[in-house]
Amino acid sequence: MPYIAIPSSLPGIRSLLAFRPEVAQPISQLAETLLHAPNSLSPGERELIGAYISALNDCTFCHMSHAAVASQHLGDDGTIVKAVVRDVDTAPVSAKLKALLAIAALVQKGGRFVEERDIARARREGATDTEIHDTVLIAAAFCMFNRYVDGLGAWTPTDPAAYKDRARSVAEIGYVASMPQPSPTKG
Amino acid sequence: MPYIAIPSSLPGIRSLLAFRPEVAQPISQLAETLLHAPNSLSPGERELIGAYISALNDCTFCHMSHAAVASQHLGDDGTIVKAVVRDVDTAPVSAKLKALLAIAALVQKGGRFVEERDIARARREGATDTEIHDTVLIAAAFCMFNRYVDGLGAWTPTDPAAYKDRARSVAEIGYVASMPQPSPTKG
Repeated sequence: MPYIAIPSSLPGIRSLLAFRPEVAQPISQLAETLLHAPNSLSPGERELIGAYISALNDCTFCHMSHAAVASQHLGDDGTIVKAVVRDVDTAPVSAKLKALLAIAALVQKGGRFVEERDIARARREGATDTEIHDTVLIAAAFCMFNRYVDGLGAWTPTDPAAYKDRARSVAEIGYVASMPQPSPTKG
Repeated sequence: MPYIAIPSSLPGIRSLLAFRPEVAQPISQLAETLLHAPNSLSPGERELIGAYISALNDCTFCHMSHAAVASQHLGDDGTIVKAVVRDVDTAPVSAKLKALLAIAALVQKGGRFVEERDIARARREGATDTEIHDTVLIAAAFCMFNRYVDGLGAWTPTDPAAYKDRARSVAEIGYVASMPQPSPTKG
């Protein structure tokens, strides 16, 4: 049960953004820039970071929704996300992405856990400054999204099928274009 | 030492937003909406939540900068922020704000730590749904800001005087208006 009177027809963060449209614009723009806009990290790699951090934060809604978007981009059935959550080191992803996922996991614990040697490892595997920056900010942003969704008790569908259609649309058109337009009658 | 090549003339999050102007707009708009825009919680109360969460996350830059903005709004010398960080229950703030700060502290630990009884306490002290929503999102947003700043090793001035001028300007004109305009020559 959500803790506040949010629209019961919408799941997770979408119900919260409908309740408070003033924050919907910056939050969906941030997601768009970090996860969907052109980047040397593919959308699938960036969604994988988000799905992984959401699993570490035990946020079922964000994990299931971003796992679905990641799988849509990666063209797989969810195997890659599951492998990353189980053990980054043995997951079928590049050495660069493993190093970035290691940084993301430290950010999830707290910003001060990241050390120079973690950055050096990512750099050795070919990560650029922008890729390191974006990894840290994606991990930090999911520490916000996850707390926002669970801290207000937003509705979390448990059937993976419930996330599929939305994932297809987000993977195709992104976060800003798939947001509902704010109602003009809102007081 | 910052972990990536960010402008050395700017402290904390400002150096990161100058490095990646594409995220500066949504992040400063989110801060504006949550902390500065008209709200039934005063800007001083909202900045206090941010300064408190930053202390819990051990983020010196965000704590010192938002403590300075809070004190500017509250017209005090920093006593109120210090009292909140020491012990919310005995701090000189309203019973409603104490209940909201208690929710914020749970959000800092993780979204799932918030329970129905914490929301009920805030409601008994007169908090509205929007105030509860905004408290959760402010706490969650600082869990992002704090990790972003420390996860990239951004420069953190330690002299409180370094935060004062900026705090005066942010308290007066807000976060969006006090952001530098993006350079037109950026590639």
